[in-house]
Amino acid sequence: MDFSSFLTSLGTSFILFLVLMFLFTWLSRRPGNHPVYYPNRLLKGLDPYEGLRAPRNPFAWIREALSSTEADVIRMSGVDSAVYFVFLSTVLGILVISGVILLPVLLPVSATAHTVIKAAVAAAANSTTSQGSFDDLDKLSMGHIEEASPRLWAFLISTYWVSFVTYYLLWKAYKHVSNLRATALMSPEVRNEQFAVIVRDIPPAPEGQSRKEHVDSYFRAMYPDTFYRSMIVTDNAKVNEIYEELQGYKKKLAHAEAVYALSKTTAKPEGTKPTTKTGFLGLVGQKVDALEYYDKKVKELVPKLEAERKATLKDKQQCAAVIFFNNRVTAASAAQSLHDKTVDAWTVMDSPQPHQIIWSNLPKRFYTRRIRQYTIYFIVFLTIFFYMIPIGFVSALTTLANLEKYLPFLKPIVEQTTIKTVLEAYLPQIALIVFLALLPKFLLFLSKQEGIPSESHAQRAASGKYFYFSVLNVFIGVTIGSTLFTTFKEIEEHPNSIVDLLAKSLPGSATFFLTFVALKFFVGYGIELSRIIPLLVYHLQKKYVCKSENELREAWAPGDLGYATRIPGDMLIVTIVLCYSVIAPLIIPFGIVYFGLGWLVLRNQVLKVYVPKYESYGRTWPHMYIRIMASLMLYQVTMLGYFSAKKFVKGAPLVILLPIFSIIFILVCNEKFYRSFAFTPLDVACRELKETPNMEVIFKSYVPPCLHSDKGDDEDQFEDHALSQVTKTGSAV
Amino acid sequence: MDFSSFLTSLGTSFILFLVLMFLFTWLSRRPGNHPVYYPNRLLKGLDPYEGLRAPRNPFAWIREALSSTEADVIRMSGVDSAVYFVFLSTVLGILVISGVILLPVLLPVSATAHTVIKAAVAAAANSTTSQGSFDDLDKLSMGHIEEASPRLWAFLISTYWVSFVTYYLLWKAYKHVSNLRATALMSPEVRNEQFAVIVRDIPPAPEGQSRKEHVDSYFRAMYPDTFYRSMIVTDNAKVNEIYEELQGYKKKLAHAEAVYALSKTTAKPEGTKPTTKTGFLGLVGQKVDALEYYDKKVKELVPKLEAERKATLKDKQQCAAVIFFNNRVTAASAAQSLHDKTVDAWTVMDSPQPHQIIWSNLPKRFYTRRIRQYTIYFIVFLTIFFYMIPIGFVSALTTLANLEKYLPFLKPIVEQTTIKTVLEAYLPQIALIVFLALLPKFLLFLSKQEGIPSESHAQRAASGKYFYFSVLNVFIGVTIGSTLFTTFKEIEEHPNSIVDLLAKSLPGSATFFLTFVALKFFVGYGIELSRIIPLLVYHLQKKYVCKSENELREAWAPGDLGYATRIPGDMLIVTIVLCYSVIAPLIIPFGIVYFGLGWLVLRNQVLKVYVPKYESYGRTWPHMYIRIMASLMLYQVTMLGYFSAKKFVKGAPLVILLPIFSIIFILVCNEKFYRSFAFTPLDVACRELKETPNMEVIFKSYVPPCLHSDKGDDEDQFEDHALSQVTKTGSAV
Repeated sequence: MDFSSFLTSLGTSFILFLVLMFLFTWLSRRPGNHPVYYPNRLLKGLDPYEGLRAPRNPFAWIREALSSTEADVIRMSGVDSAVYFVFLSTVLGILVISGVILLPVLLPVSATAHTVIKAAVAAAANSTTSQGSFDDLDKLSMGHIEEASPRLWAFLISTYWVSFVTYYLLWKAYKHVSNLRATALMSPEVRNEQFAVIVRDIPPAPEGQSRKEHVDSYFRAMYPDTFYRSMIVTDNAKVNEIYEELQGYKKKLAHAEAVYALSKTTAKPEGTKPTTKTGFLGLVGQKVDALEYYDKKVKELVPKLEAERKATLKDKQQCAAVIFFNNRVTAASAAQSLHDKTVDAWTVMDSPQPHQIIWSNLPKRFYTRRIRQYTIYFIVFLTIFFYMIPIGFVSALTTLANLEKYLPFLKPIVEQTTIKTVLEAYLPQIALIVFLALLPKFLLFLSKQEGIPSESHAQRAASGKYFYFSVLNVFIGVTIGSTLFTTFKEIEEHPNSIVDLLAKSLPGSATFFLTFVALKFFVGYGIELSRIIPLLVYHLQKKYVCKSENELREAWAPGDLGYATRIPGDMLIVTIVLCYSVIAPLIIPFGIVYFGLGWLVLRNQVLKVYVPKYESYGRTWPHMYIRIMASLMLYQVTMLGYFSAKKFVKGAPLVILLPIFSIIFILVCNEKFYRSFAFTPLDVACRELKETPNMEVIFKSYVPPCLHSDKGDDEDQFEDHALSQVTKTGSAV
Repeated sequence: MDFSSFLTSLGTSFILFLVLMFLFTWLSRRPGNHPVYYPNRLLKGLDPYEGLRAPRNPFAWIREALSSTEADVIRMSGVDSAVYFVFLSTVLGILVISGVILLPVLLPVSATAHTVIKAAVAAAANSTTSQGSFDDLDKLSMGHIEEASPRLWAFLISTYWVSFVTYYLLWKAYKHVSNLRATALMSPEVRNEQFAVIVRDIPPAPEGQSRKEHVDSYFRAMYPDTFYRSMIVTDNAKVNEIYEELQGYKKKLAHAEAVYALSKTTAKPEGTKPTTKTGFLGLVGQKVDALEYYDKKVKELVPKLEAERKATLKDKQQCAAVIFFNNRVTAASAAQSLHDKTVDAWTVMDSPQPHQIIWSNLPKRFYTRRIRQYTIYFIVFLTIFFYMIPIGFVSALTTLANLEKYLPFLKPIVEQTTIKTVLEAYLPQIALIVFLALLPKFLLFLSKQEGIPSESHAQRAASGKYFYFSVLNVFIGVTIGSTLFTTFKEIEEHPNSIVDLLAKSLPGSATFFLTFVALKFFVGYGIELSRIIPLLVYHLQKKYVCKSENELREAWAPGDLGYATRIPGDMLIVTIVLCYSVIAPLIIPFGIVYFGLGWLVLRNQVLKVYVPKYESYGRTWPHMYIRIMASLMLYQVTMLGYFSAKKFVKGAPLVILLPIFSIIFILVCNEKFYRSFAFTPLDVACRELKETPNMEVIFKSYVPPCLHSDKGDDEDQFEDHALSQVTKTGSAV
């Protein structure tokens, strides 16, 4: 890739972004599009423009985003979103403070160096760029400095500077997030999940006691004053299936009714009764009156559901339960305490929000969970390393030279200058981005198989796996892969350590990643802001599919930020920018734009668009933190390798200290803060509540929808089998 | 060392043991010696012979020891002693079950091997024994098998057998000890420490609140129903000094009174008033009437103590406190819960028994403790490795050949056959044992400096340090040291890994350790059983020093088992026997005798002699467990090295699996059981009590003796400054 194609890439990206931004300004003003651009505000019952003083100029959203406070974010979108912004602004801070020193110092130092690049270094450092003529950018990188030059001291000090800036800002951020979490948890609002704990691995009940009595007597003995009630987890697979079927028919019935009502208002006042077919997907089989058919189905299913519901509550009790306490301190304390003398019985943990519990995972036994966990780690390991091979090929094949070579029939197209430039700029990047889109669902599925009890926890686990995947495959894979084809023989002759190889390959891939980052921020955030795809989907659905009000609401339901893929994506950029920060400082401004623009665009989206599905009160933070640190350590180790490759004998040993500092920093931070993210500190839980909690409401919120009775005698149903107001049976030995 | 000197060593040791045992039988029957041989029974108010049906024959004590149950041990000496016997019998079990297979299989396999020992192996394996002619024993060891012989399969299978026997018995033992601990903790007796927790790192009280109010309001908010009272830890250094001085004078006064009373009964009915001198140690200075002088001193000190006591309670409050709850569950749960949102404030932990709290360590801050801890680890590390050099020299110098060479004037003495044999048998061992006696006090001192809050914990920490010292210096040091002087050049030429070196040196040191173990069990346990030194001390004190009843009681106070040195000593034997079990299976019977005899003798001592100072409810066990596992892994790694040295290509890779199995076993055990040793499980704490606890008594038991008021208005004193019955100040924000 030459310099002009790099500029083309930048330029087109920027123009695309401008176009998308104006599109956004224009589209978001039209009231018909409000459900797409302001769903969060609409759902909260706010006017889309409420509280905004500015007239609707193209940059109004920027001012709104900049003037919003953290409290606004928490109010509109919860603590998790606020924590995500802490992450964005921390990284932004690291890059800005690093850049302020690195850019004015390192760029002149590199540019003015009298390079007599020796043959060996030249081969390694300029392996990919030597084909093109990317000299202007190359001059500004560390690869331009000759071996053992005293100028390397500037780079060494810069390495230290970046590390210490990171430590300082991360420490501040950890403290800040810790306070955010504490403030949220000590809120006087009644939050249902703060009054409950989950118990797993319940041993079999003794002879003559039901499981419920067993659980009740066990907890009543320990918490005589604060134990409220228990709920045994049941195997809901079958009742849920019937419930889903019933809900499906109810929806179809509502749709048919809406269609029927609509047909009345037109020419025929008696309307046209909609019809459906009884076979597969309503496409084959006998043609019947839809209204009657669905109504019959619903009527058939209701008693079936009721019967299954009773059977489930009675006979399908599992070895897990939810325990309710009438105050927050006891619940917080119970979740932290060891109850049985072995860890594999009566495992108590704090409860996630009721709607994010993965019920089917609760009854999984301790050792089952462990074995599943390690099995899945192994599968993920295999996934990461089997993908490595294709990615290596893809990134090596998708250079134009290679394409022409292997697919000669493309030659006439590819030779045209414009197409050539665009293709050269984007082709490898697009291949990579498409490739990455395949994975997240699979990783989330795997994470749920581990036996994790809550959706948000599963998201965090999937996010972690995705991060390791990205760093290992995209970053290390592309970096090494790009040199692999040119220097393969060299490596064969001198089998060297991976760090050395990585260090030598880095400068060569710098331009690839510059383009990658630029593409991600301009195009990625442009599409994010303009919401073109949700807009299209919404209008199509509105026009052709949705008939009832409910259906329409579902059509514009905004979804959440999608942390499971968003954070690893950001982390990949963090890794790339950190690792190149000293080697090719020119990447820092790109990183700043990525995180700055990201902050702006997402602030807008969080305030107006996305509605978070779950709230984990900032538990994502320790994961973000440890991954920034992982990136930093990768950077430090790479720099160590690179300084050694530059034969910088005096300075290189000093770099060894940095990973050690990082490990100490991680240990200190973890020790100081981590426990308060794993548990709720009692000091936080003991704050007074606004009102006395209605325990019955809290209890009901935990009953899965498929177990809710329509008859309203809900309580009696539960009373029979899964409730605690039985006579005290005493647990003393 | 040749075979006859080995037999001499064994024989003399055994005779010595018999002599000591008969001495014990004879001495212990005399009623005047009962305070030395039965102090535990006397202190418990039992008759020395109570419940013993047997007449006093020389072996009666053996029958008593064998017929005693675990419940007897717990009743007489607590859970910690019972756990120690679980340790002894587990190791005994491992050795017996290993020996049953290994001895009949491996000895014939070795003895019948047609050895064509190649030059290299011969040099390494027989390095120390080649000087003597220790062929008979050598033939029975693995060193006798030639390289790559198929006979090595028998040794490989034996290695596996020993490992799996160890896993199985340790698992059973861990389960058993876990039950012992639970049973003890759920006892219906009121144990003061189960109602209290220790709080450290208390932040400064807010303006206008005393520290006491601050602590009270903090805990009352969290535990409104169960919080009883708090006690702020004070800096007692000065008041304690005055208290000790006062107690000293009181003792001297009592002694003088006893002397005066005694003098009356003799010739002069008016008696002789004892005198003392006012100067240093009563040896110099003015001669005064002792009674008057001590009485005056006591009267002077009492008001001084009282004034200092008040000042201490008021002005010397520290940032730590003891919190009392009126039930066990809350205390157990509080000790496990995170209270503040950072770990370095309001650290709550379970309370040790009041008399074993190290008060001066409580106010040490979180980071101070951490820094001290790591500093002390570093000092211990240095200690271990600086001792290594002298020990290497000692063990190499104290072979007779070397002694004659370097100290030629000893030659005439040493040349005499009897002396030569005895010296040859014992000299290196005695040097080693004396050497080891220097260290424990220093390690205990270091451990206390770490900021550990209880004596028993400090003992455990010291014990761990001593273990690493023993294994590294005595075992590895002697083993390698012994070859160091003979094969030093060889090593210089082929610098090899330490494992290889260790593996090659092992057979050469086998006989040294055989003798070492034999000496330890016959002489060590003989002296232990006969209690000759305490007997002498007691009779000397009784005759010349003690005048009053109290003084006499102090003279025969039995002390405890001394786990801090005893367990590492045993552990060293475990390590030696395990490591040699396959290489020289003849060591197994020695190990069996060591642990069998130890079990017998100590059972007797525990039931009749020693009185435990502390009770930690079996918390020593995880330490014993992990160290047995450490020995096992050392053994496995050594065997790996030795099989490689034997060029056993087919089998050696199989040995790599064993350390992996061990790591998995450790992780599983730790995960399953460890938490219940670190904390009190709530299920265990919630059992009903025999009686309602008298909280005031519990509170008083925590007041250090120097702060007890003589006047009886104790409560009022504490009421002022360090008590909780103040008006509720409310902690809600």
